[in-house]
Amino acid sequence: MNPFKLNAIGIIRTPFKNQNETPIQSSRSSALGEIEVFEKFTEGLDGVAEFSHLILVYVWHLAEKPKELKVKPFLDNNKYGVFATRFPCRPNPIGISTVRLIQCDGNRLKIQGVDMLDGTPLLDIKPYVPEFDVFQVDRIGWYSRRAYV
Amino acid sequence: MNPFKLNAIGIIRTPFKNQNETPIQSSRSSALGEIEVFEKFTEGLDGVAEFSHLILVYVWHLAEKPKELKVKPFLDNNKYGVFATRFPCRPNPIGISTVRLIQCDGNRLKIQGVDMLDGTPLLDIKPYVPEFDVFQVDRIGWYSRRAYV
Repeated sequence: MNPFKLNAIGIIRTPFKNQNETPIQSSRSSALGEIEVFEKFTEGLDGVAEFSHLILVYVWHLAEKPKELKVKPFLDNNKYGVFATRFPCRPNPIGISTVRLIQCDGNRLKIQGVDMLDGTPLLDIKPYVPEFDVFQVDRIGWYSRRAYV
Repeated sequence: MNPFKLNAIGIIRTPFKNQNETPIQSSRSSALGEIEVFEKFTEGLDGVAEFSHLILVYVWHLAEKPKELKVKPFLDNNKYGVFATRFPCRPNPIGISTVRLIQCDGNRLKIQGVDMLDGTPLLDIKPYVPEFDVFQVDRIGWYSRRAYV
């Protein structure tokens, strides 16, 4: 079964060359970016232009291998288990970000709300559908008492 | 760069042995399941118990390799580009589902709202945080005129 081998379907272009200038979440970013889907996958984009928001699944390709399983997230000074955080250094460095689709032109998608490094390898694009993606929560753990806004 | 090699961090247990009995989305499921995180990753769960909802990132390990890039999703009779759907047969068969956390006991998490097959390999757990995960959409493409509810 292991390991699962995944190949990029495209590349995400963003203004961010360094981790320390990258927004911590797409919901806090208004930065513009572009997805270049590799040409052999262009047909898979049929119908994508009709969605205002897309979920991007990608690889934090420059994230260091995690040395430990407790990490200090960007928004707090305490350490938590990595699975209680969205920290990039994790056993499988897969990121998910929801972005706004601005324009779809062939295999290139202009997007807004990018929070990943320029050159990030893209694994998947899924349409964001509130019926499937919006949940009413009761508890958000350490985020409700975090150190930083 | 390619391929990226990912190893499961655990296994998702669900009541579903066949694809045709599996709910199409976690938001439509009330089924109970259990995550068994492999013991070497247990420390990474510290703090997870304080979240009511978790995003699971997993592999559709039994999904067939896509023969084409346009697919007929479960909710409609028309074909769309696979990236305009949540269909499992896609270039990288990665699924994401948000589930309710019922109980956390060591490396075992009782969850509700499972929509994946029993034995699904788990790649990642992320806390669901509305500030990061809830977006106001303008358009949801073919879902707004789909054939089936």
